[in-house]
Parts: sequence; structure tokens; C-alpha cells
Amino acid sequence: MNFIRRTFALLIVALAGQTLAHAQDPLPSWNDGPAKQAILAFVKEVTDKSDPKYVVPEDRIATFDQDGTLWVEHPMYTQVMYCLERVPALAEKKPELKNVEPFKTVLSGNRQAMAKLSMKDLEKILAATLTGMSVDEFNAEAKKWITTAKHPRWDRLYTELTYQPMLEVMQYLRDNGFKTYIVTGGGQDFVRVYSERVYGIPPEQVVGTAGGTKYGYEKDGKPFLTKEPRLLLNDDHAGKPEGIHLMIGQRPYAAFGNSTGDQQMLEYTKAGDGARLAMLVLHDDAKREYAYGPAEGLPDTRVGTFTQALYDEAKKDGWIVISMKNDWKRIFAFEN
Amino acid sequence: MNFIRRTFALLIVALAGQTLAHAQDPLPSWNDGPAKQAILAFVKEVTDKSDPKYVVPEDRIATFDQDGTLWVEHPMYTQVMYCLERVPALAEKKPELKNVEPFKTVLSGNRQAMAKLSMKDLEKILAATLTGMSVDEFNAEAKKWITTAKHPRWDRLYTELTYQPMLEVMQYLRDNGFKTYIVTGGGQDFVRVYSERVYGIPPEQVVGTAGGTKYGYEKDGKPFLTKEPRLLLNDDHAGKPEGIHLMIGQRPYAAFGNSTGDQQMLEYTKAGDGARLAMLVLHDDAKREYAYGPAEGLPDTRVGTFTQALYDEAKKDGWIVISMKNDWKRIFAFEN
Repeated sequence: MNFIRRTFALLIVALAGQTLAHAQDPLPSWNDGPAKQAILAFVKEVTDKSDPKYVVPEDRIATFDQDGTLWVEHPMYTQVMYCLERVPALAEKKPELKNVEPFKTVLSGNRQAMAKLSMKDLEKILAATLTGMSVDEFNAEAKKWITTAKHPRWDRLYTELTYQPMLEVMQYLRDNGFKTYIVTGGGQDFVRVYSERVYGIPPEQVVGTAGGTKYGYEKDGKPFLTKEPRLLLNDDHAGKPEGIHLMIGQRPYAAFGNSTGDQQMLEYTKAGDGARLAMLVLHDDAKREYAYGPAEGLPDTRVGTFTQALYDEAKKDGWIVISMKNDWKRIFAFEN
Repeated sequence: MNFIRRTFALLIVALAGQTLAHAQDPLPSWNDGPAKQAILAFVKEVTDKSDPKYVVPEDRIATFDQDGTLWVEHPMYTQVMYCLERVPALAEKKPELKNVEPFKTVLSGNRQAMAKLSMKDLEKILAATLTGMSVDEFNAEAKKWITTAKHPRWDRLYTELTYQPMLEVMQYLRDNGFKTYIVTGGGQDFVRVYSERVYGIPPEQVVGTAGGTKYGYEKDGKPFLTKEPRLLLNDDHAGKPEGIHLMIGQRPYAAFGNSTGDQQMLEYTKAGDGARLAMLVLHDDAKREYAYGPAEGLPDTRVGTFTQALYDEAKKDGWIVISMKNDWKRIFAFEN
């Protein structure tokens, strides 16, 4: 009896110890290093009332780029995959598209030919597959796709290819009173479909490239919104701070990106008073994910570009570069 | 001793009773009647897990028009007052405006002439006083004005002329898990300056008419945003549901308005599944505030219009009309 009690007591202590260890490390998927230390130090400063850099909770805003910062962006942006895969269903509804480029090439399934499509071609495909339907129809289609479509390399749902260390940072910031936002060059409506489930970020905290909608009535008088091919916000490059002003109205205290598309958001964040955190994810892990950008001397790709100039600005301006290879203990939740 | 104890005990009971009474009535400035009952019944339905109309907290969105719904809009929208009163300072900076209409008329101070300015004239004044400066400059100016400028009839700050019953509804909804938004035809940037302090609504939960901004750099390289005379969102009429989609991405469960500018927002809200609350403030209290709209057979005014057609749609579509005269025990917090 005494032995059992003693064992039980030890077990309790051990479990409590484990809980404590976990509570002490809010970023378990990060290796100890300058990136992790910068995050911890920043949160300590802005939440400590006795620190001159203390920030009241209502001003604690953190913004995150999505593609390449929160999840894999290779070999192609996930949303572009969605648009390409929507083309067959679109051609069923509008058979006249079957003989028109660039739809003809997409329908051919010839991946080599598809890889050569120009930006103009892609824009045509995006407009055709993302607009001209009601908001409710779009949401239903996108939701269906994102819960079934898989990434060719890992044969896993795209939503499983989110970076575990970044999910931890978002949670850690929220636990410390931050409101976390996605600020993406991707489509606002697309990301809003899964943002709550995947990132714990509600739709209203997703800022992205957005088109206009048009209010109208069905035959029975019921009102609905149609997605229009009219660009309201091009949420990339300078469009990111402009989008942040439009949608949030406050300058972030922390911002995370990975490409030239995030440059202005990081500059704008870092230019504020007090403690500001700007971080840049460097894709330098060809084995576990991909390597591209100046670290590997790789050429620019169609996806977000991480140029030498961006790297230099980061170093000069005090942004923290996150090395996926060195700073991340694991990249995906499904890894051991 | 016993007497003191007894008195003390009675006092405690009395105080507790008062607290209890307050807890039991979250809307103390409302008279009992169909409007108050509709609000209480709606909140009960959407928060009761055993009710088929239960709504999960993350979907609880409520939207409020501002002018005429949350505060006084007569004799002129507060923001238009701001723009008119900014003209002298503007003319100091740009003396060439002193001899150009409509600025000349505004500078004359002739109220009769000012009242006759056309919509086009007003638009010129709005563009000149709301754009062409940095976001930070605008915020500082607007903040200074709103904390000092007074309404001519009451000689009180405009922010004191918010409707106490509506402040109670907003707080009551928030206490029940709702995220409250302002959705105004007025300028988004203007309202965001005081929304947190006056309504308890943070800047990012203000949706309004919005112009574009332009990202640029000061001479020392510091980035800043300039307000541009380029309309991004005309947040009135059909622009309200369109703005809600852009900025929130979810259909509200409750919406409050007072004019034809709110018609589509109320229709859109009411057309959703389950329990939806649409309410319309009727200005029928000439003594305590103003009377305008069909209830008094008054002609349309320059400010938000409440037409007979809107009233008829409300009755047909199950929107609740709030009579300021009958439903509100007091209108302003400064009343006894």
C-alpha cells in the first residue's frame, strides 16, 4: 500500500514536472538560438508593465504572411493549384472554354505546358475560377477542395503542410494578448475558408488580395453577393501596409514574412516606436522542405522571392532571419 | 449593537438587491416593450445550447450603423462638421483656396450660404480635408477635434451625444459573446479615432467608407502612408453588405440601422438562417432629440433618410422598429 502510494506520488510529481517544462517552453519545435530568443525577449518586453516598452493589450497586433511563412509554397501557391484544378468543372459549365487558351492547356493535363503559362494566362484562370459565382458557392467549393486535395510531394493535405514552429508562435502571441492576423498576397476569401480551423485565426482576421462583390437579389427576393473580377486590394508589397491600414487600422508590433512581397510590411512594422519584431523565414532546408533564395544561391522562382537585397535589408534594419534548417527542430506536426 | 447590526444587514440586503436588479436588467435605459423584448429573446435563443437556434460564439457578429443609430446625426453628420471646421486651417496652408468655391463660402462663415452647398461642393471639401496628408497627421487632427468640438444644440461634445440605450445593447451583446462592429457610411479612419473610447469598439472593428492610402518613404527613409482621394469602399446602401463581406467575411446575426443607407445590411442580415435580429431606430422624439421620417410625415433631410418604403419593408420583413419616444427611457447618459 505504501509502495503504491509512493509510486503514485512520484508519478504525480513527474507529470507535474512535465507540465511545468512545457509551460516553460512555449516554442518546443524551435531550437535554442537567436530567432527563438528574439521572440521570447520581445514578448517579455511588451507584456511587462514595468518595462518602458510595455504595450497595452488592445494594441498588440501581429501579422503573418501565409505562403512560405506559414505553409509550403512550392512547387506552386496552393491557391493556384485550386484554380487549375477547378478548370475541368468550369469547362463542364462553359464548354466554349475547352478550345480557348489558356484553358485548353490546363485541360490537356500536360504539366510541362502548364508550367510555361504566363502570368497573364494565370490571371485569366484565376479570374475565371475565383469570380462570377456567389460568395456562398465559392466558399462551399473551396472548403470541399481544401479538405481533400493533397500536395504531390508529401501526399498529405495542404493544410498539414503548415509549419509547426509558426503555429506555436501564433499561439504563444495569442496567449500573451496578441490579436494574430494573416496578411497574404493570396486571396482573402480563399484563406478565410480554413483559417480558423488551421491557424486558429477567424475569417475577419485574414487580410488578403480582395476583389469586389456585388449585392443582388435572387428571383425569390433573397439577397446574395456575387464575386466580381474587380480588384479592390492587391495585398502584396506596398499593398500589405496599405491593406493593414484598411483592414486593421493599426501598425503591427510584430510581423513575419519570407519574401520581397513582405518587405514593406516588415519595414512598416519595424518603423514604429518601442519594441517591434520583424522576422523573415529563410528556406534553406532542401532535405526537410525546400531551399531557395540567397542562402543557397538559387535563382528566383515563380513563388515568393527572397533576394540578396532583402537579406541585406534584414541585416541592416534589425529584422531576424529564421533559418528553417537551424532554427526549427521540426517543420511539420506529423514529423517525430 | 443589535440595532447597528440589523441596520447593516438590511443595508447589505438592499445593496445586494440593487446589484441583482441591475444584473437582471442589462438594458436599464429601455422601457419594457416589443423592442426590448426582441433583443432579450434573440440573445436567449442564440446563447442557449439546447435551443435549435444556438449560434457558436465565433459566429456571433453584430453590426451597427453609426449616424442616427448610435449618435445624433442632426443638423449635420459630425464628420461633415469636422471637415467644414478644418477649412480655415487648410486655407492657411493653401492660401489659393481662399478665393475658390466652395472654400470661399465656408470661410465666409455664412451659415445660410453653407447650408445651400451642393453634394458636389461637400465632396470637394471632404476630399480636401480628409486626404493628402499622412495617416498619422490625420489621426492627430481628428483626435484633437473630437475631444473639443461641441454640438450647437446641447453645447456638449459630440461623443456625449451617443444613445445610452444603444451603448447598453452593444455591451449586452459583447457580454454574450458577440463581436460588435460599426458599419458606417461615414469615414472609416475618422470613426476609428474614437471608437474604442466611446463605444468600446476597437479600430479594426470599424467598417466605413474608405479611401486608398499610398505607401512611401520620408527623406530619412522612414515609411509612412498618405491618405489618397481614391474611393475603395463606399460603405452605404449595397456597399454595406459588400463592406461586411470585405472586412468581416461573415454574415451578421444582428444588425442595427436607421435609414435607407442601412436597408441592404438589414436585408442581408435577416436573410441568414436561424435567429437573426434586424432593428431600425425611428427618430420620433422631437422633444428629447429630433423627429424625422415617416412617423412624423417629415420631408427627407440631407442626413440619412427613413422613408415610408423602408418602414413598410421593416414591417413586412420582420425587422423591429425602435421608437425613440416610446422605447427609450433616456436617450443620453447625461439625462437623469
